[in-house]
Amino acid sequence: MTTLKLPGLIDGHVHLREPGATHKEDYVTGTAAALAGGFTCVLDMPNNTPPITNAETLAAKQHLARSHARCDYGLHLGAGADNVQTAQALAPQVTGLKLYLDQTFGPLRLDDLASLVQHLERWPADRPVLCHAEGRTVAACILVAHLTGRQVHICHVSRQDEIELIRRAKEKGLNVTCEVTPHHFFLTDEFANTIGFGRSEVRPRLAQEADRQALRSNLEAIDCFATDHAPHTRAEKDAPNPPPGFPGLETALPLYLELVREGVISIEQLIDRVVYNPRRLFQLPDQPETWIEIDPDEDWIVRGSELQTRAKWTPFEGWTMRGRVRRVMLRGVEAYRAGEVLAPPGFGRDVRASAS
Amino acid sequence: MTTLKLPGLIDGHVHLREPGATHKEDYVTGTAAALAGGFTCVLDMPNNTPPITNAETLAAKQHLARSHARCDYGLHLGAGADNVQTAQALAPQVTGLKLYLDQTFGPLRLDDLASLVQHLERWPADRPVLCHAEGRTVAACILVAHLTGRQVHICHVSRQDEIELIRRAKEKGLNVTCEVTPHHFFLTDEFANTIGFGRSEVRPRLAQEADRQALRSNLEAIDCFATDHAPHTRAEKDAPNPPPGFPGLETALPLYLELVREGVISIEQLIDRVVYNPRRLFQLPDQPETWIEIDPDEDWIVRGSELQTRAKWTPFEGWTMRGRVRRVMLRGVEAYRAGEVLAPPGFGRDVRASAS
Repeated sequence: MTTLKLPGLIDGHVHLREPGATHKEDYVTGTAAALAGGFTCVLDMPNNTPPITNAETLAAKQHLARSHARCDYGLHLGAGADNVQTAQALAPQVTGLKLYLDQTFGPLRLDDLASLVQHLERWPADRPVLCHAEGRTVAACILVAHLTGRQVHICHVSRQDEIELIRRAKEKGLNVTCEVTPHHFFLTDEFANTIGFGRSEVRPRLAQEADRQALRSNLEAIDCFATDHAPHTRAEKDAPNPPPGFPGLETALPLYLELVREGVISIEQLIDRVVYNPRRLFQLPDQPETWIEIDPDEDWIVRGSELQTRAKWTPFEGWTMRGRVRRVMLRGVEAYRAGEVLAPPGFGRDVRASAS
Repeated sequence: MTTLKLPGLIDGHVHLREPGATHKEDYVTGTAAALAGGFTCVLDMPNNTPPITNAETLAAKQHLARSHARCDYGLHLGAGADNVQTAQALAPQVTGLKLYLDQTFGPLRLDDLASLVQHLERWPADRPVLCHAEGRTVAACILVAHLTGRQVHICHVSRQDEIELIRRAKEKGLNVTCEVTPHHFFLTDEFANTIGFGRSEVRPRLAQEADRQALRSNLEAIDCFATDHAPHTRAEKDAPNPPPGFPGLETALPLYLELVREGVISIEQLIDRVVYNPRRLFQLPDQPETWIEIDPDEDWIVRGSELQTRAKWTPFEGWTMRGRVRRVMLRGVEAYRAGEVLAPPGFGRDVRASAS
């Protein structure tokens, strides 16, 4: 058996659903899924119920995460219509400001140019801004960031026109970064029949083969890989009006390794995108004595029922994946071994803890 | 009686409705309205029925305009989903490429990022591109123009966030120009009751007082004034689903002069925006022996029924306006005098005639 030792992975984009939707996931199950997938740090999105947009909702979420998380974490703050003036005061406590500018799940949504400009120009220039932006909105974000002197991170880029635009913007020296999900690297809308109509709903939507190829041929323009782990229950996904989102933490690493095997990316370039780039981008502290051990040759069949996520399903059901996490060491402690999550709830640390 | 002598005015944005909707307006009546309003050159938009997007529809429209127009004119080409590859060949024959990127009247509409990028990068870099873009789409246009090395002209800017964004983009040295209509300088959504619900429909919509004030306080960022003369019949405007648009050619100049009287702009700055800037921007030939004579002190009451436009209505019905065109000389010929249009249909010249 070969063992591949890597730094603990960092996922800059997860939805752990606590508070407000703990029937889908919570910090206990979501961070168990993270450790099982090789992630020692996850950054959690603010589209909870209630959304995390002010000191009160942030403090309540910090309290829950502190008691329940098994791995390290950071919290992103939500940009709403009502916190343009107040968001900046919370910047030291969070890993970024998230703007929802296109169709998504949850209550946060900004539609107009004015709120985009106002949020960017008030947010501290040295702190991350993340945008859910698709199509022309990607272009709008990059321009507004340029005019306001901000850096902007485009979440889950999924389409050819978007990644090519971001590549051109980077070539022109504009201050933009981006991330791509494993599902957009591997799935297209042709998989909807296999996955099932409701289960295949995700935002951004599964795209075309040309889009998938464009992501793979523009790796140099992609700063981070991120799962956008967004669990919903099987019952919700199979009902009318299925909510968009896939669980992704436990299937990400073998898919990333598949990109290495296919020659799309080197292992060093992969580690940049799942460790060093997100750490630098989100200004995360080093995790001492933290690593993961992988058997890169182990084949395993994905079964949603066997996953740690409370969602207990995956769009990759039945896929044979190669490469499995055997052991996770987090700050000198064995946090996961061979299918068993060892780190207890409350072991995880808030990466901004000193500021809260 | 004082007489103010000015160069012939140029309007870069009119809809003369021929071919396809000559019950609203045609070149004969539309250019009569232009001359009565002091305009000796108008640039006509391509959202006809059929839209002007290829050599065949352009040739047919050129033929109609050549026979019917009383004043000089240019034709803008429409950017459609089906002419990304072929539009550029027609560039020498037209005054610009028009992209409809947000809600508007007519069949031309582009929704995606890819068509915006592709049209801009294929259109000759030294020829004008005009965008109907609102809100965040304005930002997207400016970014895409920057990345593709194009200049972009934003039509009928109507809102505070838009004009402030354009001002910032200009301050950063980005290659963007814009125009504002007289109705957005003078009307707000509060006028809808007076004008009537259907008649007040226009795109971009009438905005708020803060928007109107922002246009007036950002004159240095506004390159051109343009009427967006968009006639519909009274019956259409008063029916269910009223089409958006105002006639504007015959009420523009007194409103522009009102801006001068109010101290918003000097007469020299006005002439830049209605003559020299549009001429330079759209690369129009000089019109020799062409001028207009105005009585700047004449008060007159606007009556739609007395206008030259076939629409025979105006959102400014009953307004007392100061300043009236007495005489128009076009290429050495008296084209208009004291309420009478003298230039016959066919007198107008296509500003790109040598290329067609």
